[in-house]
Amino acid sequence: MSALALHGYFRSSASYRVRIALNLKGLDYTQLPVHLLRGGGEQLGEAYRRIHPDGLVPALVDGDAPPLLQSLAIVEYLDECYPEPPLLPAAAADRAYVRSVAQQIACEIHPLNNLRVLGYLKSTLGVSDEQKSAWYAHWIGNGFATLERRLAAEPRVGRFVCGDTPGLADLCLVPQVWNARRFAIALDDYPTLVGLDERAAALPAFARAEPSRQPDAEPPPSR
Amino acid sequence: MSALALHGYFRSSASYRVRIALNLKGLDYTQLPVHLLRGGGEQLGEAYRRIHPDGLVPALVDGDAPPLLQSLAIVEYLDECYPEPPLLPAAAADRAYVRSVAQQIACEIHPLNNLRVLGYLKSTLGVSDEQKSAWYAHWIGNGFATLERRLAAEPRVGRFVCGDTPGLADLCLVPQVWNARRFAIALDDYPTLVGLDERAAALPAFARAEPSRQPDAEPPPSR
Repeated sequence: MSALALHGYFRSSASYRVRIALNLKGLDYTQLPVHLLRGGGEQLGEAYRRIHPDGLVPALVDGDAPPLLQSLAIVEYLDECYPEPPLLPAAAADRAYVRSVAQQIACEIHPLNNLRVLGYLKSTLGVSDEQKSAWYAHWIGNGFATLERRLAAEPRVGRFVCGDTPGLADLCLVPQVWNARRFAIALDDYPTLVGLDERAAALPAFARAEPSRQPDAEPPPSR
Repeated sequence: MSALALHGYFRSSASYRVRIALNLKGLDYTQLPVHLLRGGGEQLGEAYRRIHPDGLVPALVDGDAPPLLQSLAIVEYLDECYPEPPLLPAAAADRAYVRSVAQQIACEIHPLNNLRVLGYLKSTLGVSDEQKSAWYAHWIGNGFATLERRLAAEPRVGRFVCGDTPGLADLCLVPQVWNARRFAIALDDYPTLVGLDERAAALPAFARAEPSRQPDAEPPPSR
């Protein structure tokens, strides 16, 4: 079996997703931290751009093959190459449901709140810190409200997003809830999401992937 | 075979992706247009929210099953249920490559420029029309520049993003290039993307999915 190396950042929720997937699969991997803030961002340097032209984390290297990019594509790759335990259910309609929840987070919530977008708001549009925080809270609130409404009414929800096995959707939800807590977003209106997060986050594969437990972890900044 | 019905909007690039996939598979489907601008947005009304709680297009209904949401999840569903012709290559590493290109568009470019984000910039942050256009151009330019650099150096690129068969990545690229042209973004710096777009857009499955050829198409607004 080839050696797996993950280029990531402890607080990046896309890296967090991949760490959970690797842990759920029981795979050994080396972490190669890329510091997103130090020196204007190590991810934008030439060295890392050779691995990921977009200057984003994560990237997963599996042996001598070209780096794998984009967290959800990486997770699907892991699920295809290392099928046990599966991260997607068996039936096509259920797979579509799990993928759609993952994408509701990865395409509708997360992209609006990543570092480079917040940077553009501040440096190019000159918004205030209050406006930046309101932007952050708006997209999490908007996304969580619709996800809560959807999952509260969804018969496939069990202990996890689809039945009693954690998978692709859970490994997107837990990092997004972690992000929300980090920015002190109130979660009282999302009991279904909070319950799903609690049950998944307690599993060892999720707990070991938590940002504060990574080799590049730093104490939270005073904000 | 069950009846397929697509809730979409002619100009929505996520709907456009699904139309291409349905056409590539040679599937018959009914279009149920949801007008995103009329009456404050039909997608936000109670009737459509019962289909898609997020109030987003597209949603695909396949027979009596619950609606399928999120364009990439829908396309993967179609590929699993109707395997010919495949929209993903056979090898796991190539599948990851194609998915990552699709996600580079669907997670890094498209979410920043959709209607509700532009609406928030204008109504809540009070940016000018010039700033809104600059925001739009910035995220397309940023995303296309990195995608161009990546694909120009990628040996798997052929007539299409992966070899000589159009698939998941091409059906994301063509609508995004269409969007860029609609907003008069110069494409001179992206010859690889423009070539890939030209070859794919010329195929009947792509051409028939083009926004101006949909039942709900309207003439372009004077801007």
